[in-house]
Amino acid sequence: MTRAIVFILLAAAARGALMPLPVKMTPGSGRLAIDGRFGVTGSGCPAPAIARFQTRIARQTGIPLGATGQGLSVTCRAPAPELPTLGEDESYTLDVTAGGARLTAPTTTGVLRGFETFAQLIAPGSDGFEVPAVHIEDRPRFPWRGMMMDVSRHWMPVEVVERNLDAMAAVKLNVFHWHLSDDQGFRVQSKLFPKLQQFGSDGNFYTQDQIREVVAYARARGIRVIPEFDLPGHATSWVVGMPELAAAPGPYQIERKWGIFAPVLNAASDRTYAFLDAFIGEMAGLFPDPYFHIGGDEVEDAQAKTLQPRFNQRVQALLTRHGKTMVGWDEVLAPGLAPGTLVQSWRGPEALAETARKGYRGILSYGYYLNYLLPASTHYAVDPGDAEGILGGEACMWAEYVSAETVDAVIWPRMAAIAERFWSSKEVKDVNSMYQRMEATSRWLEWTGVEHRAHYLPMLERLAGGQPLEPLLVLADASEAGGHDLRAQTGQYTSWTALNRFVDAARAESEPVRHLQQAVARLTAADRKTIRARLREWVENDARFQAMVDGDSFLGELAPLSRNLKTAGEIGLRAIDYLESNAPAPADWVAQQNHALDEIAQPVAEVILAAVRPVRLLVTAAGR
Amino acid sequence: MTRAIVFILLAAAARGALMPLPVKMTPGSGRLAIDGRFGVTGSGCPAPAIARFQTRIARQTGIPLGATGQGLSVTCRAPAPELPTLGEDESYTLDVTAGGARLTAPTTTGVLRGFETFAQLIAPGSDGFEVPAVHIEDRPRFPWRGMMMDVSRHWMPVEVVERNLDAMAAVKLNVFHWHLSDDQGFRVQSKLFPKLQQFGSDGNFYTQDQIREVVAYARARGIRVIPEFDLPGHATSWVVGMPELAAAPGPYQIERKWGIFAPVLNAASDRTYAFLDAFIGEMAGLFPDPYFHIGGDEVEDAQAKTLQPRFNQRVQALLTRHGKTMVGWDEVLAPGLAPGTLVQSWRGPEALAETARKGYRGILSYGYYLNYLLPASTHYAVDPGDAEGILGGEACMWAEYVSAETVDAVIWPRMAAIAERFWSSKEVKDVNSMYQRMEATSRWLEWTGVEHRAHYLPMLERLAGGQPLEPLLVLADASEAGGHDLRAQTGQYTSWTALNRFVDAARAESEPVRHLQQAVARLTAADRKTIRARLREWVENDARFQAMVDGDSFLGELAPLSRNLKTAGEIGLRAIDYLESNAPAPADWVAQQNHALDEIAQPVAEVILAAVRPVRLLVTAAGR
Repeated sequence: MTRAIVFILLAAAARGALMPLPVKMTPGSGRLAIDGRFGVTGSGCPAPAIARFQTRIARQTGIPLGATGQGLSVTCRAPAPELPTLGEDESYTLDVTAGGARLTAPTTTGVLRGFETFAQLIAPGSDGFEVPAVHIEDRPRFPWRGMMMDVSRHWMPVEVVERNLDAMAAVKLNVFHWHLSDDQGFRVQSKLFPKLQQFGSDGNFYTQDQIREVVAYARARGIRVIPEFDLPGHATSWVVGMPELAAAPGPYQIERKWGIFAPVLNAASDRTYAFLDAFIGEMAGLFPDPYFHIGGDEVEDAQAKTLQPRFNQRVQALLTRHGKTMVGWDEVLAPGLAPGTLVQSWRGPEALAETARKGYRGILSYGYYLNYLLPASTHYAVDPGDAEGILGGEACMWAEYVSAETVDAVIWPRMAAIAERFWSSKEVKDVNSMYQRMEATSRWLEWTGVEHRAHYLPMLERLAGGQPLEPLLVLADASEAGGHDLRAQTGQYTSWTALNRFVDAARAESEPVRHLQQAVARLTAADRKTIRARLREWVENDARFQAMVDGDSFLGELAPLSRNLKTAGEIGLRAIDYLESNAPAPADWVAQQNHALDEIAQPVAEVILAAVRPVRLLVTAAGR
Repeated sequence: MTRAIVFILLAAAARGALMPLPVKMTPGSGRLAIDGRFGVTGSGCPAPAIARFQTRIARQTGIPLGATGQGLSVTCRAPAPELPTLGEDESYTLDVTAGGARLTAPTTTGVLRGFETFAQLIAPGSDGFEVPAVHIEDRPRFPWRGMMMDVSRHWMPVEVVERNLDAMAAVKLNVFHWHLSDDQGFRVQSKLFPKLQQFGSDGNFYTQDQIREVVAYARARGIRVIPEFDLPGHATSWVVGMPELAAAPGPYQIERKWGIFAPVLNAASDRTYAFLDAFIGEMAGLFPDPYFHIGGDEVEDAQAKTLQPRFNQRVQALLTRHGKTMVGWDEVLAPGLAPGTLVQSWRGPEALAETARKGYRGILSYGYYLNYLLPASTHYAVDPGDAEGILGGEACMWAEYVSAETVDAVIWPRMAAIAERFWSSKEVKDVNSMYQRMEATSRWLEWTGVEHRAHYLPMLERLAGGQPLEPLLVLADASEAGGHDLRAQTGQYTSWTALNRFVDAARAESEPVRHLQQAVARLTAADRKTIRARLREWVENDARFQAMVDGDSFLGELAPLSRNLKTAGEIGLRAIDYLESNAPAPADWVAQQNHALDEIAQPVAEVILAAVRPVRLLVTAAGR
């Protein structure tokens, strides 16, 4: 199907909310009504999956659905597998006509994927909600489409994990990589070695029942769970309660800062391997997936580094003994690494290429670090590639600067763009289409229960502290939160630092600023009016904002940011004056303004003034 | 303390977020910092209450609190009672200084009330969050401060009940009246008579374990739970599974419409009383509070009405046998009613006065019906009065036109104003102060978990269906949802009707419109500028809105409303022109505009155009 047809269909279907885009889509004529009589009939699909799907539709539409409705008929050709499995068939075919819809798939997992597509197609129409007639054939490009969540540096309770699993399933991701231990916390209950969580977690760990609950929750959504226990480095939390495992004598404390730290497990002691044998055996019973991640990254101690290849080989032998296949970060790629090992590449395309060249399988995470707070377009442009042995990729959510309150907003909606990269054809790469659909996706994702949009206003209200929200909101809408590196530069963060400032409320990517950039690119008369109004708002906002900051530490640090926004507005207004005067702005004026914009593009309170981008476009246009 | 001092203190303390206002407040000097080291120490307060309080503070401030902090020292003079009890001492004294805070109360319940006050005092300051120094002595005016929730007409899952209990506790309410049965649903599991829920609930009922969970949840928050089983009318759902209890032969179906229906229990049959004896006995074991509500309202069948006094007496005897005191609606007040009965007045002040005159105790609900969607000021002006035997009041949340998604927004924040009426002195009646504090309260209430603000934007986004939200939001901010009577007039609602239209998203009271009315009342030069901008926005919004409605049933019904908003804006702008011209508008112009405003004040799609109110003020001002 040509791209033109895709977009005609998209305009009709759910107003462009399909993400990831299916492989093949053919529009039909007519529409299927979604009302109180809607329901699912058919065979081979587990009742809980149908019930969840109905609940999702009911939330999304606000329609109370009875248990006995019909409209979508499901045919699943094979019984549900015991577990979601790497490489299983996830394809499905969806046919929607005015008379009803039919979803056919060879496996339950395919049905789950098709349910999500169907839900995305529902849109308001002339007589309530409806799905446009369409024929869809779909299957994933990569079999490994994952997200890693670090629950060590900041604790993420079960409900955070589960709501993110729901959102992952909604964009057809199928691997949840659970980074369960690091220097700052050991997050799983071990019954054999209870000192691990007793001394290494501040009481914040998952019980074994909770682990089983999450694994079952993910399984029901067609998502595999890969546990990671990072070894032999990043292991401070292990040796707080069990210093006998460490390469150097203790005592140790849970690490409260961020970085790379000295404590490593003792790779030279048989006691370490005896412990790991028992520990891996216990964890193998909790995590049914055959893949098991041992970390292996960022060991800096020279001696430990020397011992690491041998350490990895012995751990690998233990994993094999317990029926597991090893996964490790780039650094595990060393002579003697057993064939079949899966290497997760965080260092870059060269590292991944080397993995493939050496005959190992790999997944790409370089380019998909959500905590860098890069634009979705940057992630979207990174492709795992088609080399033999590359199974797909994983986005990584490292948790130095996120809490249970803020983590969803760092993951979503940008994660949806990465999910499309993993699922859809590599030819699907139109950034404008991606952003249009990602914005719609960001909204319907709320019906899955994920809270990426829920905390923005409350967190800003918290900072406003009973003062008017509006001036703070104008500033926040024009701003973007600084990412990992910028925040690390301040060097003052620990586990105890409250993540309740403006930078924690601000978004990774500002939608209002993106819309303004689009308006600047078009620059019709109507656009100029809109742009002028927004620029004036920025200018006028400063006085109102400054009136609020007196004696308030949260707002006080933002005073320069608000002044910068005023400056951006003033520059933009002068640029528009030039544009409307039909005479280009003098080159020295352009240079001067660009210099001023460079100044105010500097971070303030770890926040970036996104408003600079459209103003820069205006200045450039004014000079032409 | 004079009102002036109250307001000076309020300006400092939490910027006016205290609700209900305490009896006595004396400002001190300095402030207590709330940071990661904050915690509660002391004796006599249950650990779970302290843990909940710390979690609340952590959510509200975004500060991770350890388990070992200090700052608030609690002294509770008596051990916790088994149950919250009518008339128990709920007083507390709170002293905050720069060095620490002290909370003293004779009972655990008093400590809980003091915790809520403390939480409300926290505000951003010059070095993070802080509480201003203050001395507070506080106790409630009425011992019965309740909210009734109808879970029969629309099913409210446990989480809806629990999040509302949290919000109730936050504004010091102490009675949850649970309307558990009505024509449209029987919502409790009976093990003795399982046909009740099997045939009378569509599967939507609370298990006995869930009932115990909710009762314990409420108890931990100092809230009594009063069950209501409405008898002998409003009983259709009972007789679907047990037609032998009905006065007329069945069969019966669960009622799907709203109103007053014929089925009544057979008051002439001994079998009915034998059943009720066993049923009340079973329920008495589930609900530990000594008060038990038997409804008794709205029986229309002439014969049943004649039998009702005798029916009530026999039920009362059964309740006494099971250790319960009867509560009933106004209609139970008839000759022969046992002394000690508590009468809940929904008919009005005369009914309540009659109750008191006859020596019974009473609570007031007339004037507190949340489902009428009246302004908070209307409820705030209603006072239960000081007559002997009046224990307080209850707001009522009847559920014909609310779902689990919308109910919180109908209850809150207006419920907080009623809670203040029940707790604070009757001298506390400044409506401006109430609104100012209610707005702040609406925001901090979000930290309790209640979802009254959470669904507004998502519900509007659902209607926008991927089109721009802004035009719909401008319209929604200028609108208010019609209440019970207006919606009942359409006459088309059943239990199956989706509550997903604009009227369901619109608020009971528009804050933006209230702010505009305040600006019109001041009418400074800055206000005139703000007002003009808003009026222009209304005028310009219509074209953008009309461009969205084509072929969309949800937006199509709003097209006249949007045109009306444009008209309101135009009239308002002309009125401002007159005001700025320094010559009064001609009387016939004023009359003409008022006529036009009368027209557009008519409901459209069950929605009221709140925008008419400030425009009417402008027109009146222009004519003076």
